[in-house]
Amino acid sequence: MPTLVLLRHGQSQWNLENRFTGWWDVDLSPAGVEEARAAGRLMRGKGIDFDCCFTSVLTRAIRTLHLALHEMDRLWLPVTKDWRLNERHYGGLTGLNKQEMTEKVGAEQVKIWRRSYDIPPPPLDRDSPWDVSTDRRYAGVEVPETESLKDTIARAVPYYEREIAPALQAGQRVLVAAHGNSLRGIIKYLSNIGDDEIVGLEIPTGKPIVYELADDLSVVRRFDLGEA
Amino acid sequence: MPTLVLLRHGQSQWNLENRFTGWWDVDLSPAGVEEARAAGRLMRGKGIDFDCCFTSVLTRAIRTLHLALHEMDRLWLPVTKDWRLNERHYGGLTGLNKQEMTEKVGAEQVKIWRRSYDIPPPPLDRDSPWDVSTDRRYAGVEVPETESLKDTIARAVPYYEREIAPALQAGQRVLVAAHGNSLRGIIKYLSNIGDDEIVGLEIPTGKPIVYELADDLSVVRRFDLGEA
Repeated sequence: MPTLVLLRHGQSQWNLENRFTGWWDVDLSPAGVEEARAAGRLMRGKGIDFDCCFTSVLTRAIRTLHLALHEMDRLWLPVTKDWRLNERHYGGLTGLNKQEMTEKVGAEQVKIWRRSYDIPPPPLDRDSPWDVSTDRRYAGVEVPETESLKDTIARAVPYYEREIAPALQAGQRVLVAAHGNSLRGIIKYLSNIGDDEIVGLEIPTGKPIVYELADDLSVVRRFDLGEA
Repeated sequence: MPTLVLLRHGQSQWNLENRFTGWWDVDLSPAGVEEARAAGRLMRGKGIDFDCCFTSVLTRAIRTLHLALHEMDRLWLPVTKDWRLNERHYGGLTGLNKQEMTEKVGAEQVKIWRRSYDIPPPPLDRDSPWDVSTDRRYAGVEVPETESLKDTIARAVPYYEREIAPALQAGQRVLVAAHGNSLRGIIKYLSNIGDDEIVGLEIPTGKPIVYELADDLSVVRRFDLGEA
């Protein structure tokens, strides 16, 4: 049976500092490292196994994957990294402390930017210290200046359809280690969740979400592994 | 300029215990973890950078690569894992303490098996606890029962020619994290070293070996990074 497990990266250094991160490449905090290891031990303990893995090009997701695979003795599995699984690009909010931001523009505006399905934050200046558009890992990629959740989903879901679904169709068991908003996209697609509802869907960090799929990749069962 | 860096994994738990390891999947020791991190810091400090990476399907080489890339902020680089870069398969010597082995068959016989170019150790029994032929990672692979150094080179060099050389020919800078004997193969090929000489060539663990190559992939310069 094709199985897809979604794993949101553990706590990063900027989660800890309550700053908008997006495409800025922040590492895991010590607590995030432990979350990733615990996820690996949990999957191993529950008899979950994989044939291939996908992740973003951001360190916090890649390390989450590596730390979990190490606990599972599965570091040898093939891993594909792609920017289309990156976190949402938070535009001009990148690098800002959420508290400061709220004080600056008001809680209501922050909520609109963060919680709207299709309204992006203001663009990030190309001369901002948080701009990554010239980073070598994005050579050939049109790096966005900002993204709404809709924009994020508009790259994550086609990637799922083009790269991940064929592996599942071949009967493989797939692990995707990624970010809150790219995973929202895949969940929205698989579980057929509406635009308004997906905005409010909280995905816990470091807790594997298991999708058991039929041969046509429709969802047979979805459950959070820790609660199975 | 095409650049190839070869990195032998750091100390493993069985290196520490002086046991023949081969294809048995032993993890790095704490000292091996530190060697890998130091290699990453050294490469970063010397301004070495990469476009893609290759490693074996053995944990000690994969972790060496990951730990080094983490120090270089390059975890996002594409990594290809292949059994053809595995350590030499030590056959019936696998799992044995080198001291015990010497006492059992004599130092001369051990030396012949370890130091001959084309004489393999006796085959590993398929019911040995150290047999990995049914491990899922080798599905579709004809796992050898033993290998001479010549056998190891006969899979490592064609892999270099088929998978690594094209990346170099495209101008990429390539990091290969692997094992003493698979790296011996690549070094023998690149530096045109004779059969007798390659057997005695010691490759230090955790010390990057840099090959600067011409467009036709002939060697322009080779140096050990720590001594450059």
